[in-house]
Amino acid sequence: MLERGKKRVLTGDRPTGRLHLGHWVGSLSSRVRLQDEYECFFIVADLHALTTRPQKADIAEIPGHIREMVLDYLAAGIDPARSTIFVQSAVPQTSELALLCGMLVSLPRLERIPSIKEMAEAAHLDVLPFGLVGYPVLQAADILLPRAHLVPVGRDNVPHIEVAREIARRFNGLYGDGAPVFPEPEALVNDGPVLPGIYGQQKMSKSLDNAIFLSDDEKTVNERVRQMFTDPNRVRADIPGTVEGNPVFVYHDLFNPDTAEVDNLKRRYREGTVGDVEVKRKLATALNAFLQPMRQRRAELAGRPGLVDEVLAAGNERMRAVARDTLERVHEAMGVDYFR
Amino acid sequence: MLERGKKRVLTGDRPTGRLHLGHWVGSLSSRVRLQDEYECFFIVADLHALTTRPQKADIAEIPGHIREMVLDYLAAGIDPARSTIFVQSAVPQTSELALLCGMLVSLPRLERIPSIKEMAEAAHLDVLPFGLVGYPVLQAADILLPRAHLVPVGRDNVPHIEVAREIARRFNGLYGDGAPVFPEPEALVNDGPVLPGIYGQQKMSKSLDNAIFLSDDEKTVNERVRQMFTDPNRVRADIPGTVEGNPVFVYHDLFNPDTAEVDNLKRRYREGTVGDVEVKRKLATALNAFLQPMRQRRAELAGRPGLVDEVLAAGNERMRAVARDTLERVHEAMGVDYFR
Repeated sequence: MLERGKKRVLTGDRPTGRLHLGHWVGSLSSRVRLQDEYECFFIVADLHALTTRPQKADIAEIPGHIREMVLDYLAAGIDPARSTIFVQSAVPQTSELALLCGMLVSLPRLERIPSIKEMAEAAHLDVLPFGLVGYPVLQAADILLPRAHLVPVGRDNVPHIEVAREIARRFNGLYGDGAPVFPEPEALVNDGPVLPGIYGQQKMSKSLDNAIFLSDDEKTVNERVRQMFTDPNRVRADIPGTVEGNPVFVYHDLFNPDTAEVDNLKRRYREGTVGDVEVKRKLATALNAFLQPMRQRRAELAGRPGLVDEVLAAGNERMRAVARDTLERVHEAMGVDYFR
Repeated sequence: MLERGKKRVLTGDRPTGRLHLGHWVGSLSSRVRLQDEYECFFIVADLHALTTRPQKADIAEIPGHIREMVLDYLAAGIDPARSTIFVQSAVPQTSELALLCGMLVSLPRLERIPSIKEMAEAAHLDVLPFGLVGYPVLQAADILLPRAHLVPVGRDNVPHIEVAREIARRFNGLYGDGAPVFPEPEALVNDGPVLPGIYGQQKMSKSLDNAIFLSDDEKTVNERVRQMFTDPNRVRADIPGTVEGNPVFVYHDLFNPDTAEVDNLKRRYREGTVGDVEVKRKLATALNAFLQPMRQRRAELAGRPGLVDEVLAAGNERMRAVARDTLERVHEAMGVDYFR
């Protein structure tokens, strides 16, 4: 059910599989909240995955990744009755709009975006695929297709949103005729803490194998917390330790609601009167308490075969209806609705 | 009616309006012949027009240009019962395939194509639009969508066909699994003479105002032939003149079926025993005899309101059916047919 009047949000992920605590901190928790105020569209950006990994073996993993990710969405509180969860490739209008958007931005403008070359390097590509250069164009189409007002993103993605804004402005200027077709989408930057992986330093990431997944069971969480890095200079429990930037306390601050307990642990850690074992045991308990309701919902949802596919079928259908409406407006504004 | 077994041809034009004798010599005459042997798809490439001219005023001229051009197609002998005439923007699958093709070709590969920068210069663009860099990618999608075997093009377009071949090879290699989805399209290069405009030197072109249009009436043709350049050194009729490269004789060779008359004129021209007036009068007569059946068919067709729109509606529908079939094969081969 499309709710009129509410402003729209578009955000999403490439289909990388199960989500972890870093996703929760960085995006998922705010998405759950945004549902109350906005009409939310959550895109599973599988076409974007092809920009660096077009190989068949990689594509073969996508449907599984999508199902795991959407189960996490639902378990975490994304409500498919209020929000639209859809798969990018199931909305062919995305490609149509991307082609048109590509006419309205210059190559040098896209070449100035640092993340493109970083993505190419991360994927060990010798040359830039044309499609990867067009990554921000495709993302602009994702954003403009539901005529989104707000795009929650990480800081590194802000230059992409700037491209989408420029394309929206250019489109409205060329074709809007006083009645803009697209709102200028605004980035909603998550400027909260970035969750470090369990070994500290680098941020939590599936590919670095330093993650605790939202669907990890109690035993796995306990084991991951046991492996966690703490203050490297504290070789014995009776040596005063540093709390600031210490992964164990970053996690305590984020996931342990018992602030009295956390303050007590921090004080004793600084004094050298608490061991890592106790700090970690209490963190594991807090994390498991935090994850338990999600795990339980996830297990219930996973036990209903076909549920995720139904959610996506409905979301795709809903997004396609919005997309058809937008493309009609686009065609009419541009005057390319002849002979259709 | 799709004819199975015949090889497929894809070729076409950007919607520039009425066609002239240069089009007939360069492409239209061979298209009419190709219909006997091939299943032909003739694309009106209106999306390509947006790569250099996205302005609303330019777009507003497109439908009129399309109708004039298609009338010329039909008058010249393109048979919509055998061949598919369609408008690019009416086949949304083009954009979908173009997006996928863009993943399979590199930016440096596209930047090596000289025609792209030439097009940008010709359109007085300060910077390269991303969509213009993707011109050959979009053209590859046009070609691959009907799974065409043969692409009649001018010599300057051959590098574009090479890109389409590379994309077809890359696609088949990545996803074909022993059963190629796309034939490697071959360029059918028109290596016949290029028709000079009526002022000689430059080729016939609408924008240079040196054209004789297929739909020009008898009076206009007579006037255009009268304006034609001949041998600039021949200031009087009794001075021997040069036949080779002389526009009037290039036209006589191409359009005057009375070879005895042409030989006689050439001999007397070389001897200095014939005036320009007679040579031109006989050329005008020959041109009008050549154009008269086309003009008559065009007048008949133009007198049937809605005819062109019906031809295009049927062609678009036929092309969309072929496109759906191709995209099904593409999705299945790639494995991206999940959740559709």
